[in-house]
Amino acid sequence: MIYMCAATMKGFKITTSLRNALTKFLEKVEVKIDYEDIPIESALHRVLAEDVIAKYDLPPFNRAAMDGYAIKSEDSRGASIETPIRLKIVGRLEAGFFKNINIGSFEAVEIMTGSKVPDQADCVIMAEYTRRVSEDIVEIYQQLPPWTNIDQAGSDIHKGDLVLTKGTILEPPDIGVLKALRIEKVKVFKKPKVGLISTGDELIDSFEIVEGGCKIIENNQIMLSNYIIEDGGEPLKYGIISDEFEAIRKIIIKAASECDIILLTGGSSVGRKDLVPKVINEIGVILAHGISIKPGKPTGLALVEGKPLIIMPGYSVACIISYLVFCQPLIQKFLNINPKLIKLTVNAYLTRRLPSTAGRTDFVRVSVFRKNGEFYASPIRSTGSGILSSLVKANGLLEIPDEIEGYEEGAKVPIILLRRQIPENGVNE
Amino acid sequence: MIYMCAATMKGFKITTSLRNALTKFLEKVEVKIDYEDIPIESALHRVLAEDVIAKYDLPPFNRAAMDGYAIKSEDSRGASIETPIRLKIVGRLEAGFFKNINIGSFEAVEIMTGSKVPDQADCVIMAEYTRRVSEDIVEIYQQLPPWTNIDQAGSDIHKGDLVLTKGTILEPPDIGVLKALRIEKVKVFKKPKVGLISTGDELIDSFEIVEGGCKIIENNQIMLSNYIIEDGGEPLKYGIISDEFEAIRKIIIKAASECDIILLTGGSSVGRKDLVPKVINEIGVILAHGISIKPGKPTGLALVEGKPLIIMPGYSVACIISYLVFCQPLIQKFLNINPKLIKLTVNAYLTRRLPSTAGRTDFVRVSVFRKNGEFYASPIRSTGSGILSSLVKANGLLEIPDEIEGYEEGAKVPIILLRRQIPENGVNE
Repeated sequence: MIYMCAATMKGFKITTSLRNALTKFLEKVEVKIDYEDIPIESALHRVLAEDVIAKYDLPPFNRAAMDGYAIKSEDSRGASIETPIRLKIVGRLEAGFFKNINIGSFEAVEIMTGSKVPDQADCVIMAEYTRRVSEDIVEIYQQLPPWTNIDQAGSDIHKGDLVLTKGTILEPPDIGVLKALRIEKVKVFKKPKVGLISTGDELIDSFEIVEGGCKIIENNQIMLSNYIIEDGGEPLKYGIISDEFEAIRKIIIKAASECDIILLTGGSSVGRKDLVPKVINEIGVILAHGISIKPGKPTGLALVEGKPLIIMPGYSVACIISYLVFCQPLIQKFLNINPKLIKLTVNAYLTRRLPSTAGRTDFVRVSVFRKNGEFYASPIRSTGSGILSSLVKANGLLEIPDEIEGYEEGAKVPIILLRRQIPENGVNE
Repeated sequence: MIYMCAATMKGFKITTSLRNALTKFLEKVEVKIDYEDIPIESALHRVLAEDVIAKYDLPPFNRAAMDGYAIKSEDSRGASIETPIRLKIVGRLEAGFFKNINIGSFEAVEIMTGSKVPDQADCVIMAEYTRRVSEDIVEIYQQLPPWTNIDQAGSDIHKGDLVLTKGTILEPPDIGVLKALRIEKVKVFKKPKVGLISTGDELIDSFEIVEGGCKIIENNQIMLSNYIIEDGGEPLKYGIISDEFEAIRKIIIKAASECDIILLTGGSSVGRKDLVPKVINEIGVILAHGISIKPGKPTGLALVEGKPLIIMPGYSVACIISYLVFCQPLIQKFLNINPKLIKLTVNAYLTRRLPSTAGRTDFVRVSVFRKNGEFYASPIRSTGSGILSSLVKANGLLEIPDEIEGYEEGAKVPIILLRRQIPENGVNE
């Protein structure tokens, strides 16, 4: 019965659990932290590599918050509609034009919102609570405490305040604050360079495929590139390498010297030529090969010259899962992103029962839709790891952890959204 | 008592409800749909302006899904470990190298995963269920139905299939599918051009502010630019315009001729110089000025030469709310994005009571954090519409609709996340 025995010798005899593999991998990877100074104009979504301390007050001066008259608050004591107080107008200030007008007792300066308030004034009375008696006399009808209607210098941000902390992903308001604080450049973490190598003699990059030929278009690199850009990395494409030991060895060594992370797609099956594992065993170390996830089982995790290398399945769906599970957290590690990012997730009702094998983490492509304000997730039936059309139909992903044997119809489950567009009232199939 | 009366004459006498204002605005805006053809390499997050129909089958040919032997399924009838069937090996096919080997009865071709399967074969028997007896003889131990272990041409995507629909925001997998289908360029909606004009003599763009001066840095344009980029528009900066009727009139007319949407910040208060409303009343029409939202009340909605123009408050926080509420949906209208986008939202427990005024939509900046797997939202206390520091502290926004008078402490409320980073176990203040 040696033949049955032969059958079990195929494939990955021992697979590593997702949790173990990921933890071990992230531990072993040494992250070389690298910075660069960039102008704030190009800082959107970059990650701060320094704390930002305010060098100036905001507002930079006492600013009138209303149109009216800058006065000494003590002069308003007792003012009311019945007992108005008359003040002498000694000047007028428009926003953006300033001269420090001397304000004496019972004197006022007409002032517009946004103007700098003269030093001797400590409040602004709104125009509505005044009446202009003549060219240079105003009556006021309100008693004001000091600092009424004045945005005091530094009341928003004080010189010396910690404004933004290291590790912040810069969003539009942050960049607005940097600009207001007269900061022209910020120190950010360099984007990790992610090298993309595809192996396989059947692959071509060109659109000029020969009709009736035996080549297929390599499409994982363009997909992965776009994910890498979204996640804050910089993709470097190394193209398609033929299935030859020396060619694969050379390109991996080149990529390891130029990149922070290497993604190698195709050639990850234990069958076929076993070339990639052979090469890596010579120039690096394989930490795990064969992970208990579906799809994505043929994924391998390795280190070459200290650089993390992920051997990814060539089939696109498995390739993407492998990327999301292993490469995304790695990029975040290089970017020092902490705390963890929130993934766009909704709780949805399953439209049908979904069995799963315990001891394996399943990633199920689902089609999410909205109906009467609730989300529903319909598992996509064509689940082959090479089925590209399923990637277009899927707008969500359900992770079934290895200890769970599936879900019943109607179960409420968390769905990671792969798209921000969710159709209303219908199945997206 | 004319003075009390005078007091009420200030400000926006009649404000429009958010719902009414937005509906009316979106209805009145005529959208000129504009397309462009772009290479798929730069198509990430662009919006498809055409349906994409597959011109080729995927896979493009019958593809071996396993390493093994391509055979005629009828030749495997009755094969088992006890009753092996011997086949003559007439060739070998590696992935990417093909010649159409003629397979006769009881003949087999050794084949690798990914290879094109010869025409006469209709299944691939896995190597595990075979034994190589000699150089040109293989024994098989399994009976196979037709098409076993073959990914048939077109089984993923058929020539003629509708693959992606108009209005789809292109995500990485879509671009992978386009590449696989040998599509080099796609028709997408042109990014709407959003013109940014700031008014105010107190504003400067330069970092070389004079210490002790009365100018402040204009920082709304850089903030709005980044939001516009995130939302799929193209920002055009027109800089800072001084508070002069003719200067404002000229720049608005210029922007209206060059842009699809115009955002005018600063100068939106009814007080001060009233210049902007005056200008717009001459060259266009104001649909609403003064909206029942907080912050953002001074927002105005107008049309100039058929182009939508939003008069936005100069204070940054109000400016951002005004953008999110009125400009974002407008950009989506120009991009034909349908269905509506999902905003990254979490349900969180309020850490304190939050009063709100009925008849007004309040947008409350909150600090969201996670504790024991639940989300909590802590309203930020410094709520002035000019307080930049609150924008840095806030990672979420709570919309309190106009019919609701606030929430109690502990209420579970939906929070729109302004950042994808959420701290664990603590208040982000």
